[in-house]
Amino acid sequence: MIDQQLQSAREHEVTDTVVASFGGAGDARFKEVMTSLVRHLHGFAREVRLTTAEWDAAIAFLTRAGHITDDHRQEFILLSDVLGLSMLTVAINAPADGDASESTVFGPFFVEDAPEVQVGADISGGLTGLPCWIHGTVTATDGTPIPDARIEVWAADDAGFYDVQYDDGKLRGRAHFASAADGRWDFWTVQPAAYPIPHDGPVGDLLTAAGRGPMRPAHVHFMVSAPGYRTLITHIFVKGDEWLDDDAVFGVKDSLIVPFVEHGAGTAPDGRQLDGSWSEAEFSIVLAPAGGQS
Amino acid sequence: MIDQQLQSAREHEVTDTVVASFGGAGDARFKEVMTSLVRHLHGFAREVRLTTAEWDAAIAFLTRAGHITDDHRQEFILLSDVLGLSMLTVAINAPADGDASESTVFGPFFVEDAPEVQVGADISGGLTGLPCWIHGTVTATDGTPIPDARIEVWAADDAGFYDVQYDDGKLRGRAHFASAADGRWDFWTVQPAAYPIPHDGPVGDLLTAAGRGPMRPAHVHFMVSAPGYRTLITHIFVKGDEWLDDDAVFGVKDSLIVPFVEHGAGTAPDGRQLDGSWSEAEFSIVLAPAGGQS
Ligand SMILES: [Fe+2]
Ligand SMILES: [Fe+2]
Repeated sequence: MIDQQLQSAREHEVTDTVVASFGGAGDARFKEVMTSLVRHLHGFAREVRLTTAEWDAAIAFLTRAGHITDDHRQEFILLSDVLGLSMLTVAINAPADGDASESTVFGPFFVEDAPEVQVGADISGGLTGLPCWIHGTVTATDGTPIPDARIEVWAADDAGFYDVQYDDGKLRGRAHFASAADGRWDFWTVQPAAYPIPHDGPVGDLLTAAGRGPMRPAHVHFMVSAPGYRTLITHIFVKGDEWLDDDAVFGVKDSLIVPFVEHGAGTAPDGRQLDGSWSEAEFSIVLAPAGGQS
Repeated sequence: MIDQQLQSAREHEVTDTVVASFGGAGDARFKEVMTSLVRHLHGFAREVRLTTAEWDAAIAFLTRAGHITDDHRQEFILLSDVLGLSMLTVAINAPADGDASESTVFGPFFVEDAPEVQVGADISGGLTGLPCWIHGTVTATDGTPIPDARIEVWAADDAGFYDVQYDDGKLRGRAHFASAADGRWDFWTVQPAAYPIPHDGPVGDLLTAAGRGPMRPAHVHFMVSAPGYRTLITHIFVKGDEWLDDDAVFGVKDSLIVPFVEHGAGTAPDGRQLDGSWSEAEFSIVLAPAGGQS
């Protein structure tokens, strides 16, 4: 016979001992985070009665995730994304703030050293796809235009691949530029396609076991920052995409779904001559004030 | 003003959506484990109000852990060990069972292909340290000797290093052998020293931030299996070691602390002639029946 009460006491004693071991941490926040992590991690293991084989599988999963991760593949971000931890962290740190643009996941495909370009530039750099003109404004929640905001954009091509997934070392479909004096900005790229998150690794196996798909609806990433405002990390999603209700990383919000309007050959509003079809999307970026909710 | 109730509802909605996404999992146990993991992971993030910078740090930590892990270094096991998850998993899966020997952590230094030797062999293979004769029995909880049990042993040398930490590819201080017809076994090795767990990686930084040390009291690992019995994974610890109350991985149990008795030069009980000092330790291994508690 197992004495359940004694068994439970022994298990909780392990947790209490580990929590106490963080008592000497120099940083109070580190201590708070780690002791909460230990309590929740142990709570999980006790609740499911984690077996030794499952513990082995978890170690093997993390090891595979670590070994597949390199400069262009970030399996741990994918893991956080498919477990919804990324969107929860967004919800905690960038709660909806009046009329400010909503946030979504950062994703694993940002790179630090994207080129700086002028407003109006074509950043597609040879990516294939329908030419796409994206334009808009950056304003504060009271409508004041924000000049010189730093706008980082990155997106996949019409095959659903980011530049960094092509392994030729060339940056394409990503850049940063500054909003103009009246808060306006625009750029040309190609209209991105829906894509599967990389699913040939452990996270893909996890999705398969869960009966979940790896697809993300087509989107363009934005990161927008300006002094005095909360940095906005978000996407715009292509309205009508078939995966909008089924995003593998739970990133879709209604306010971020934008029509990508297709036009025939001709002259675009910025004077560019198009031999064939092109599309147009508009995004009015509204930044929340830094340091809290309005 | 943040509407706390709305904010809380939005955060819980993220969790509920992610939990629901596992609804189509084919394996009921996988679904149970993953949905509990999501609930506890999200509960942690909500409780500490996990910041984006902390999420970034967690991704970077796991990435470093993955990249330092190789065939001879297992940072994820070290992480599980220092967070007490390993000992909790031991507590859940190998609860104290009457007079059966107690279990402790597996640790990261086991290798699958240790040589098979005969009972009585010297497995030190050139490791430096005081010659050490370890002997004992394998019995069932009712005292019945268990012949032909598979006994795997592995231990560090007197510098506190395992063979695999020397990077010359030679296996030393580890072997497996079978208990004799009367359940007896013995082998020679060197008396191990206390050692720090590898602490030049992210887990070492975590220990430093926690104000914790990396030391483990001196010990010899055992894994003992026999048909019809629960496999025992344990250590014996050297009585009197200064780190017994301060094991970095929480592995010490009183019943596993054993005197390592030092003798002068002369003839050991097995007939071996010793020119200098040697030590002796005894371990009566008692296996619990397989499939539950007695
Ligand atoms: Fe993306
Ligand atoms: Fe060890």
